[in-house]
Amino acid sequence: MKVTCLCGGVGAARFLQGLVQVVDPSSVTAIVNTGDDIEINGLMISPDIDIVIYHLAGIVDEERGWGIKGDTFNCLKAMEKLNLETWFKLGDMDLATHIFRTHLVRKGFKLSEVTEIERKAFGVATKVIPMTDDKVTTMIKVDGKWVHFQDYMVKMACQGIVEGVGFMGIEKAKPAPGVIEALEEADVIIIPPSNPIVSIRPILSIEGVKDIVAKAEKVVAVSPIVGGKTIKGPADKLMASLGFEVSPRGVAEVYRGLIKYMVIDEIDFVYAPLIEDMKIRVGVTNTIMKNLESKKALASFTLKLALGSSS
Amino acid sequence: MKVTCLCGGVGAARFLQGLVQVVDPSSVTAIVNTGDDIEINGLMISPDIDIVIYHLAGIVDEERGWGIKGDTFNCLKAMEKLNLETWFKLGDMDLATHIFRTHLVRKGFKLSEVTEIERKAFGVATKVIPMTDDKVTTMIKVDGKWVHFQDYMVKMACQGIVEGVGFMGIEKAKPAPGVIEALEEADVIIIPPSNPIVSIRPILSIEGVKDIVAKAEKVVAVSPIVGGKTIKGPADKLMASLGFEVSPRGVAEVYRGLIKYMVIDEIDFVYAPLIEDMKIRVGVTNTIMKNLESKKALASFTLKLALGSSS
Repeated sequence: MKVTCLCGGVGAARFLQGLVQVVDPSSVTAIVNTGDDIEINGLMISPDIDIVIYHLAGIVDEERGWGIKGDTFNCLKAMEKLNLETWFKLGDMDLATHIFRTHLVRKGFKLSEVTEIERKAFGVATKVIPMTDDKVTTMIKVDGKWVHFQDYMVKMACQGIVEGVGFMGIEKAKPAPGVIEALEEADVIIIPPSNPIVSIRPILSIEGVKDIVAKAEKVVAVSPIVGGKTIKGPADKLMASLGFEVSPRGVAEVYRGLIKYMVIDEIDFVYAPLIEDMKIRVGVTNTIMKNLESKKALASFTLKLALGSSS
Repeated sequence: MKVTCLCGGVGAARFLQGLVQVVDPSSVTAIVNTGDDIEINGLMISPDIDIVIYHLAGIVDEERGWGIKGDTFNCLKAMEKLNLETWFKLGDMDLATHIFRTHLVRKGFKLSEVTEIERKAFGVATKVIPMTDDKVTTMIKVDGKWVHFQDYMVKMACQGIVEGVGFMGIEKAKPAPGVIEALEEADVIIIPPSNPIVSIRPILSIEGVKDIVAKAEKVVAVSPIVGGKTIKGPADKLMASLGFEVSPRGVAEVYRGLIKYMVIDEIDFVYAPLIEDMKIRVGVTNTIMKNLESKKALASFTLKLALGSSS
């Protein structure tokens, strides 16, 4: 059985940790958002790719949700002295990944090639593919001004009124090698609990992706909105700003016409019939991924919801 | 009074530490060799520039003679996993300097401009100028094969028979802004105890430099050879390979026609008359720089030898 996931950062990465416990890790493909990518101090950072790989490699700082467990920040401290940008917190071990990526990309490697070498170096059996090798940049319009998503999230700590979201370069972005195949060959396509606006929309906007997802039978999303808010990240704020209800039903609206199944949290059980009215079959379970057991249970439940109905 | 020094790495840097104690630090200019520069994992490393700046900033790891005191090597360890080059030992704090340099050079800054910002960021009052903004690479012919100087020194730990030394790019290299002025305006030009073959020769080979040094009256070198060997680095091996006597007289031969004064160690006092025969006035003193006192004493002695004779 082949499983393909459309992934943002932490939420998707945690879901994947459970998923690779219930299916063969090498049968899973993670197609990862690159709209959050940013160049800082000349280093190319792909936050979502690294979050996914570090989680699957078991080296992530679980508490923060990014970076490497036990990392130090001595380079960052030294960077301050040299007036380099230090608002984006790069650990010393984490830096090696960005130096590696930047070095290979400058040598002519594609981001997808670099990512393939990276995940193998970290002993990750699951295929990790950036949504595109082209540059796409998620921009947020806050208080009348367009800023990079990382500026909004890290520098501005998600403060301010969001008036718009745009993906610079998305029209010309081609899917990275393997993206279309992974979607076409998938027995089930999962959208883990990621930010529907800034993590999943960019992936769905890549040429060809939305059509395949819309045509596929087994497409299941896990709601990142639980009890009216997100576990991590600004999905709730962004959804509200763009006029979506901050609820599983709001998430279903974003994915309308694309998903056939949806997993929502027990706390949100009242939304189940409302989402079923949208021709989306709903499964209700605990979606809070506190430990490996709950991650496994959620992955298992999600797979069964999508696959069980065919039998 | 203006003092200009032609500098390699550790020996020159230690001498400068003493020099800035006996003259106004801002009246000193260090023209630094860049032939040892190397790009590793896409990062631009200028070992001699950093050694000089770290020494003058008082943050150098005195024992090793390079890198920053108390630095950690966590990025390097992580680089191993990614199969990046790890033979050149870059500390986490040190890395910030190389990321800084690489970032600015790629943005279009000249190495001399980057170095000026760097030394100021580290609070160094002494002007530090790379010999050139152009690429010069010191190559060593070892056992029939040309290798980068850093490969010879670090990877090969100076093993093998040296058959030649070359400076790739030297013919086209222009002196960096300020180099010629610093030499012309100097009341005294000092060649601290640096490697005459791979540190000082490249500087002297930059267009215009040798002529100014040859015409200047007050030019004094401190012998890096003490008791038949070097304190640090492969100067002894390189001198022997190229047919120079491994002694202060051998050093004087390399600098013949350029220096008017020479400081040699007490242990080598027998060479004094032999070097005087070469029309070089010799001063004999302790040249081992164990602590700040001995560094100051050596700088003071060197200045007096060159300047005292004019009065």
